Amino acid sequence: MTLDDLRRYFSAAPFVADLGIEPVAFVDGRLATRLAVVPRHLQHTGSVHAGVMATMADHTMGIAAQSLLGEGRWILTAELKTSLLRPALGQQLHCEAWVLKPGRSLCFTEAEVFAQAEGRRTLVMKASATMAVVAADRLATTPERS
Amino acid sequence: MTLDDLRRYFSAAPFVADLGIEPVAFVDGRLATRLAVVPRHLQHTGSVHAGVMATMADHTMGIAAQSLLGEGRWILTAELKTSLLRPALGQQLHCEAWVLKPGRSLCFTEAEVFAQAEGRRTLVMKASATMAVVAADRLATTPERS
Amino acid sequence: MTLDDLRRYFSAAPFVADLGIEPVAFVDGRLATRLAVVPRHLQHTGSVHAGVMATMADHTMGIAAQSLLGEGRWILTAELKTSLLRPALGQQLHCEAWVLKPGRSLCFTEAEVFAQAEGRRTLVMKASATMAVVAADRLATTPERS
Amino acid sequence: MTLDDLRRYFSAAPFVADLGIEPVAFVDGRLATRLAVVPRHLQHTGSVHAGVMATMADHTMGIAAQSLLGEGRWILTAELKTSLLRPALGQQLHCEAWVLKPGRSLCFTEAEVFAQAEGRRTLVMKASATMAVVAADRLATTPERS
Repeated sequence: MTLDDLRRYFSAAPFVADLGIEPVAFVDGRLATRLAVVPRHLQHTGSVHAGVMATMADHTMGIAAQSLLGEGRWILTAELKTSLLRPALGQQLHCEAWVLKPGRSLCFTEAEVFAQAEGRRTLVMKASATMAVVAADRLATTPERS
Repeated sequence: MTLDDLRRYFSAAPFVADLGIEPVAFVDGRLATRLAVVPRHLQHTGSVHAGVMATMADHTMGIAAQSLLGEGRWILTAELKTSLLRPALGQQLHCEAWVLKPGRSLCFTEAEVFAQAEGRRTLVMKASATMAVVAADRLATTPERS
Repeated sequence: MTLDDLRRYFSAAPFVADLGIEPVAFVDGRLATRLAVVPRHLQHTGSVHAGVMATMADHTMGIAAQSLLGEGRWILTAELKTSLLRPALGQQLHCEAWVLKPGRSLCFTEAEVFAQAEGRRTLVMKASATMAVVAADRLATTPERS
Repeated sequence: MTLDDLRRYFSAAPFVADLGIEPVAFVDGRLATRLAVVPRHLQHTGSVHAGVMATMADHTMGIAAQSLLGEGRWILTAELKTSLLRPALGQQLHCEAWVLKPGRSLCFTEAEVFAQAEGRRTLVMKASATMAVVAADRLATTPERS
């Protein structure tokens, strides 16, 4: 999988493209993404909404897991947990995701989301997910695509 | 808390307002919300992105918990788990959230998200969260506002 | 599956038998279990240790899911979340578990644990799990048996 | 906090002492524990029961968080998630736990559990928890002691 392949995975997902989440770097099943924060991403408190970060973590983990699969197999998120460590204040979000344990039918993944303000990054969310590996032709009858 | 108060909680949160999530009914700490699905909410598979549903579940649970608090105290999501049971296909999403256990410093909440297609509702996500109760003046130094 | 089959599932699992967890009732994929609390189950505070309840919830959910499967397929816990709502004080624990969403490769389950003191039951834990369905001959290479 | 203090925390908790979980090393809020596996810890499949590992992860995380607190404040587990990555086969379990984010009212922690067989360690469980910090005099009205 190349960075161009990754860009296609992100631009093909309308919600992810609409938010503005884009891949930055990819090495050995580890994926980094970023998001330029704009006012519509915020809570009424001025920090980024947890849902924006959950979307970013979910999608970055899903594509990190997808990158380890061969043709005809897809990753679907079965379960996602997010811990909100600090308020997300800043101009950019950065996410790093990796596969903790690959598998034939299940992949376990993790992600960290950082908020960048004035050039300084703060860890604001830790996420973990259980991802199902399914045959592409079963996509219509399985859990939500990550 | 009235339904008008609730509407203000939803319209004051830019990301929630931008997605189009709105409160529908509120009784005894139980809150129902809905979302008219539009193309930008989708995955490349045509089902609603998990991040949209996570946002809806998180916000509906947060406001359900908020509704049980007195003045000057706020709900922040500390931790959120979502289980993706089925693909979310349809024209509308409906969410119901309730407080499983209220508390002085922590509230435990749950939510269900249903996708409605051709008038039929299907349970597509189950969520649970640990919510922190904080004094309003500590909002700047505490976890993400739910 | 009969209640006698269930008893065999519980007595065949050394840790569950050692703790004293036993099945009580079983209807339509819903399973109830109980545990007589003894001093070695406790925390230093006098309440039952979270690990005892997590074991009870995990095993009750696993067998509830197992009860819906045909021959040659086994349930393994992939992921388990427990929320500790209140201290577990009392002479008995009761657990009820059910299958939220059955599936060919994944089952989603939930459980509640109640502590009974002086005849009154209090909800002390809520649990949810993602269970993998595997062919019996793959047990040696898959996640922990629930 | 010294290793002797830690040993008292472990021996004072009946369930943890009964299982045989003991502290091994402690540096800067990171805690390592171990358990010699005996037959009563097992599943019917011969691997260690998830409940044994959940107990080990929960207690090791709780005491790691406790070690950062001053007098009169206690850690209670509010929420615990465990991912079961592989079957736990071997003669010993090792657990390492650390505080991801300390706080005045909430601590976020993580833990890894390894099974050791023939001198080789395999990661078998990843855990994360939300821990509540409470005044010691409120222990009777708060969630389960971790």
